[in-house]
Amino acid sequence: MYREKIKVLDCTIRDGGLINNHDFDHRFVRQVYKAISASGVDYMEIGYKNSKELFSPSEYGSWKFCDDEEIAKVIEGVESKTKISVMVDVDRVNLQDIKPADKSPVDMIRVASYVKDIDKAIYMVNHFADKGYETTINIMAISRDQGLELDEALKQIEKESRVNVVYIVDSFGSLYQENIEYLVKRFKKSLKTKEIGFHGHNHQQLAFGNTIEAIIHDANYLDGTVYGIGRAAGNCPLELLIGFLKNPKFDIRPILDLISYEFIPLREKIEWGYIIPYAIAGMMNVHPRAAMALRKSDKKENYREFYESLANAEID
Amino acid sequence: MYREKIKVLDCTIRDGGLINNHDFDHRFVRQVYKAISASGVDYMEIGYKNSKELFSPSEYGSWKFCDDEEIAKVIEGVESKTKISVMVDVDRVNLQDIKPADKSPVDMIRVASYVKDIDKAIYMVNHFADKGYETTINIMAISRDQGLELDEALKQIEKESRVNVVYIVDSFGSLYQENIEYLVKRFKKSLKTKEIGFHGHNHQQLAFGNTIEAIIHDANYLDGTVYGIGRAAGNCPLELLIGFLKNPKFDIRPILDLISYEFIPLREKIEWGYIIPYAIAGMMNVHPRAAMALRKSDKKENYREFYESLANAEID
Repeated sequence: MYREKIKVLDCTIRDGGLINNHDFDHRFVRQVYKAISASGVDYMEIGYKNSKELFSPSEYGSWKFCDDEEIAKVIEGVESKTKISVMVDVDRVNLQDIKPADKSPVDMIRVASYVKDIDKAIYMVNHFADKGYETTINIMAISRDQGLELDEALKQIEKESRVNVVYIVDSFGSLYQENIEYLVKRFKKSLKTKEIGFHGHNHQQLAFGNTIEAIIHDANYLDGTVYGIGRAAGNCPLELLIGFLKNPKFDIRPILDLISYEFIPLREKIEWGYIIPYAIAGMMNVHPRAAMALRKSDKKENYREFYESLANAEID
Repeated sequence: MYREKIKVLDCTIRDGGLINNHDFDHRFVRQVYKAISASGVDYMEIGYKNSKELFSPSEYGSWKFCDDEEIAKVIEGVESKTKISVMVDVDRVNLQDIKPADKSPVDMIRVASYVKDIDKAIYMVNHFADKGYETTINIMAISRDQGLELDEALKQIEKESRVNVVYIVDSFGSLYQENIEYLVKRFKKSLKTKEIGFHGHNHQQLAFGNTIEAIIHDANYLDGTVYGIGRAAGNCPLELLIGFLKNPKFDIRPILDLISYEFIPLREKIEWGYIIPYAIAGMMNVHPRAAMALRKSDKKENYREFYESLANAEID
């Protein structure tokens, strides 16, 4: 029943870090790592590798920078087959900071890129591949960038890069399953030697359904987060994805414990999930930043006004 | 872009009533009716028609019985093109209680039935059709009843009933979109002269995605509830469905106001939505009653224990 090639990547700490300035304490991250390892999930993405010249460590937590020593602290002594991933944004990482893979606890580096920055992304993944890492390119905001440039970018990735996986990233949580089918097929047309990945956002409660749709059309790298944590409405809930996949290597129970003991209390402190302004942003195919600002204001439940402000705004 | 034949049915008060003994006050139901009417939704299901000989009015609110006079009170003086629907369960209604349609504010009667009770359901819908009502048969627990009997039931409905619509009801919230495609096609094979409907449950955050899947395969009657209210994890959020459908007759804004002013406060008092024990029940394809009992106990967050109790139980 299951497809051997499917790999699941947990990005709880990385995408969840976008709602708390990447400031999870070491005990918490270690608990997540233990549960992810025990559940048999293939990868755990632990944060971003950002340059400390661009972002101050006094303003952000450890997982904005992911120093190898910090990672070593949380994984030390835990029995695990789970590989460690970090994400980098184009133009925000100092390549000299990245040690060769055999001297680092990191196994995979994922480059988040807009279509327009694909030349830089290709340069970066080839650099990381030279250093011995597995790599991905995660093409963000795909719901807005579907012109001719997308096919050119995909062909260029196929021809010029040694990347392993190219992700479709539904940054705005605006895609419906027809769009997923269309995009996976379009990606596969150009990317003959690469795997396809999917990273959903849950603004319209479609992250899990869209992930299933991506699986149906042969995407093999799938992102999820524990209890769906992540920016704005969050991501595909890892526990639902594990429940759907029939591969006996996965065990949902450590994830259930982690939710009971860590994520139920955490959700009392920070907000994510199905919240109407995020749903509206998803319907409108815009970045959730205006909705995130609304949720921090005293108009947080003024949905009609927010809807009309987006409907009347110039697109972008 | 839109399909003219699609009809949306709001069952906020009916399915929501399953979590508060159908005890919404008249002011609240009138607010819902006003918003549903202003949003252009085609039908509003206001509750169940149950026999007062079987259920005591001292134990349940008005919407367990839906007396015509009670309905008249909440809709009186509201400008509306929205039709009124009530639901009946096989063996729980006294047919003599149902007046002819032209003497009632009710336009549609929906019969909820298991496959095994289809003969009774056919008798009932024909009786209601004789009295001038639009009718549907909602086949419950379809994820468990997919044997030979299902095709026999569908053929019998096609041949012997004057029902307008036959609904696929994912009672346990356990269906994935492949199942929806399969079931809609299977229903359409036997039901050449009937419309197909879909009623989802949101245990695995798939009610909306599955509703889209049903639309893709040509189901034209779609259920939703405001803010997804309903038993256990609830239903397809009406606001997402309205956002997806491109028919300009729909206006999402009255629904957004209704959520801001009525449903955000209500959600503080009664519980529905994405809650892990309901997700587990959905994965296991069982009725949510054990999960509902758990949520009322002091073990409400003991997910692993609950998972193991279901995994170890005999199926049914």
